Parts: sequence; structure tokens; C-alpha cells
Amino acid sequence: MAHGLDKAETHSPTWRWLGLELATVETGAAAVVMPTRAEMGNHAGVVHGGFISLLADSAMGRSVATAYPEGERHYSFDLKLTFISPGRIGESLRAVAKVLHSGRRTGVAECRVEGDDGRLIATATASFIVYLPKE
Amino acid sequence: MAHGLDKAETHSPTWRWLGLELATVETGAAAVVMPTRAEMGNHAGVVHGGFISLLADSAMGRSVATAYPEGERHYSFDLKLTFISPGRIGESLRAVAKVLHSGRRTGVAECRVEGDDGRLIATATASFIVYLPKE
Amino acid sequence: MAHGLDKAETHSPTWRWLGLELATVETGAAAVVMPTRAEMGNHAGVVHGGFISLLADSAMGRSVATAYPEGERHYSFDLKLTFISPGRIGESLRAVAKVLHSGRRTGVAECRVEGDDGRLIATATASFIVYLPKE
Amino acid sequence: MAHGLDKAETHSPTWRWLGLELATVETGAAAVVMPTRAEMGNHAGVVHGGFISLLADSAMGRSVATAYPEGERHYSFDLKLTFISPGRIGESLRAVAKVLHSGRRTGVAECRVEGDDGRLIATATASFIVYLPKE
Repeated sequence: MAHGLDKAETHSPTWRWLGLELATVETGAAAVVMPTRAEMGNHAGVVHGGFISLLADSAMGRSVATAYPEGERHYSFDLKLTFISPGRIGESLRAVAKVLHSGRRTGVAECRVEGDDGRLIATATASFIVYLPKE
Repeated sequence: MAHGLDKAETHSPTWRWLGLELATVETGAAAVVMPTRAEMGNHAGVVHGGFISLLADSAMGRSVATAYPEGERHYSFDLKLTFISPGRIGESLRAVAKVLHSGRRTGVAECRVEGDDGRLIATATASFIVYLPKE
Repeated sequence: MAHGLDKAETHSPTWRWLGLELATVETGAAAVVMPTRAEMGNHAGVVHGGFISLLADSAMGRSVATAYPEGERHYSFDLKLTFISPGRIGESLRAVAKVLHSGRRTGVAECRVEGDDGRLIATATASFIVYLPKE
Repeated sequence: MAHGLDKAETHSPTWRWLGLELATVETGAAAVVMPTRAEMGNHAGVVHGGFISLLADSAMGRSVATAYPEGERHYSFDLKLTFISPGRIGESLRAVAKVLHSGRRTGVAECRVEGDDGRLIATATASFIVYLPKE
């Protein structure tokens, strides 16, 4: 569910649990930050790709919300990620998402996930099915 | 890091934190189960796609491990998901992964994620960069 | 545009130009064959991945048509491929596609592309936006 | 096979057959143009997505070549596309590709495909397996 640019937003259970925070938001874009912690580690001792995926999906969904009026709903349908360098346990990861397309039935966004030193951790694209509010 | 078919495996921090369990494993395939809980919910009240992505990535990585000798390492490089129906908070999700290709430098796996009534929740493919043990 | 299981189908310009042929079709599945020729080669002397992508997209689109009534239209929206082994110039490539989901707004299919010796050349998934005929 | 920034490049059979031309090239980026013609049409009378995929793959491969020394080889491994608006028969499509990562074993590029009026037709990402020349 989306609330455009309304800043007083209520976080979802996932955002609260993992500590995701909206860093910036404007029409067509959003940046979301996620702190990482020891429980997010994989066998190689770096951040499990699934959490990076979750962060990217969250930021892209948030960006898509800014492109539609209050009351629309959108669901990620396709999610594509490329993992480029590992996330280190303890650093905050930042996902910067941008809307590429906002049609009546579908929305498309892309995203970069960066480490706290700005290195590129992953790149992602997502497609969303959009339900516009009844007029 | 991979342990082939060794059953006495040590879970990664992520697996322990989220309660992922290996349900079945054989050469070229693995099934992993993840319980879901209220903290995994998104704004729409269903399981956040990021956790489904995490589960699929985990199962595919685990399946790839079975295709290589002890000591290899593999890292997911590309992850592609299609979300088909929502996961309900409280149900256990099951990811069934199969290896499609296990080359000297890359491995490829696919995965279905199912709800506890067997409905298809998501489908996924992943490519892995593989480092074989030195001979 | 889709014609379900109607066998007397008219091929699109692309199918005629490249010689694509429907090998088998049934509800929820279709196999399409494409001969390859010297003009389809890349710098490495094997079939350009773009033609493999075209074949996979065609077979998945054809399979999705079987899942809907006459008069629906569908457009591929997301296309994801993994290339596993090269296609050899001169061999016929066969794309075997299967519908994973056929909803009111979206359809999802997957596909294997095989060489004429049955080896796996590529695997693909596609999502389609579906427009059902007005009732 | 890659030739970095060498302008006197020999086109592959596919490029010659379909008329692909390198529009611009610099370190880390390349733009490739493809004219479209009636034979590239699908049933809906617009450019078959497979040709858009082929163009995007070509431009991304060309951009990756600029990031490595003479003698490297690279093969597209994963290709992910989102189709946003149809290509019209007769217009020239332009794929603008940029390298996101150029490591010792893998390269990653992204691409926008635009119509001749600049509208966004598709967005794509690809991963490449890289073989560096022996030193």
C-alpha cells in the first residue's frame, strides 16, 4: 500500500523489525537504509543476499508509491538482482531507487544498493502490478 | 561455503535467526522450509517478498553445494524472481531447488516456493560463481 | 494476439522470416523450433544470444496463448534468460515452454532451449501482461 | 570477442545481417543502433521483443569490451529485460549501454533501449563471464 510523499508514514512490520528507514523521498525516487547485524550473516560471514534483495525490493516499492495518487496499491511481480560485491556485517546498506515507468497497470523501478563507503553492492530492477484507486 | 550432502551441517546466522531448515537434500536438489511470523509482514499484511527471495536464494545455494566436492565455494551472482501469489503470515514456506547446470566457473539453479497448501508462491532462478577447491 | 490451440495458425512476420515452427502445442505448453544459419553468428562463431532470446520469448508467448480464450492479447513484460551452452550454427534449436501461472492480469511461463542433441542451451522465464476479451 | 575502443572493427554476421551499427563508444559505455523492418514484426504489428533483446545484448556486450584489454573474451550469461513500450516497425532503435562492474571473472552492464523519439522501450541488465588474456 502506498502513501506517496506523506512523510508521517507508518512502517510495515518488516521495516520495523529490520530497522529500515526512509532516507530520502521525492516524486519518482526513494532511498532506504538498512543497518546490518550479525544475524544477517551467511556462511561466508557477509550479509546474506536475501537481505540485500529485501532492501532493494523495499526501496523500489517505496519509489513506485510516489508516482501514483493516494489509494493505489502495487505488488512487486518480477524482481531481478545482480550481486556485485558483498555487504559487510555492521555496515548500513543504502538502496537508491528510481521509477522508470509508471503506467496504468504496471510500474517499473531500478535500484542501486551501496555500502557505507559508497561501493556498489548490487543492482536491481523490479516490475510492479498496479491497482489504481477507483475514480 | 558448501558441504555437499553432509547432514550434520552447521546453519549460518541467517538460517538460525529466521529458522530455515533443510527439509530434503540429494545430489542436484535441496528443499528448505522457512516458518513465517508477524514480523515478516508488509503493508498489505502478507509476507514481504524479500523473505521469499531470501528463502529461494538459500535453497538454490544449498542445491548447488550438492553438485560440487567438499571445499568449493559459490556465491549467488544473479537472482531472478517472479512472485505469483502472496505468502500468508503464519504458514511455512517451502522452497524446492534444482541444479540446472554445474560448470567449472558457474552454476545455475531454479526454484519453486510453495505455501503449506502447495500453491505456487514464487518461481526463481539464480546463477552462481563457483570457486573449486585447489587440487 | 493469441489463437489458443488453433492449428491453422498464421505466423507473424518474424516467425516467417526466421523460419520458426510450432512443433507441439497443448493446453499450458508449446514447443517451437528455430533453424539456425550463418547470419545468426556472433564474433565467437556461435549463435548470437539474441536469437536464443527471441526463440524463448516466442515459445513462452505461444504457450501462454493456450491458457486463455480466443480474443485475449498478451505482451511479454519481463524476460529473464540464463545462457548455459552455446548454440551451434546450423543446428535447430528447440524451445519447450510451459505456463506456470495464468491469472486475470498476468501470465508467467518458463522455457528450456535445447540443441539438436538435447543439451541445455538456455533457460528462461517470462511474465506477460494479459488483456482478456470483453465479455 | 572484444576489441576495446578500436574503431575499425569488423562486425559479426548478426550485426551485418540486421544492420546494427555502433553509434558511440567510450571506456565503459557503448551505444548501438538497429534499424527495424517489416520482417521484425510480431502478431501485434510491432517489433518482436526478441530483436529488442538482441539489440540490448549486443550493446551491453560491446560496452563490456571497452573495459578490458585486447584479447579478453566475454559471454553473456544472464540477460534480464523489462519491456516498457513497443518498438514501431520502421523506426531505428538505440541501445545505450553502460558498464556497472568489470571484475576479473565477471562483468555487469545495464542498458536502455529508446525509440527514435527518445521514448523508453526497454531496460536491460546483463552479466558476462570474462576470460582475461593470459599474461
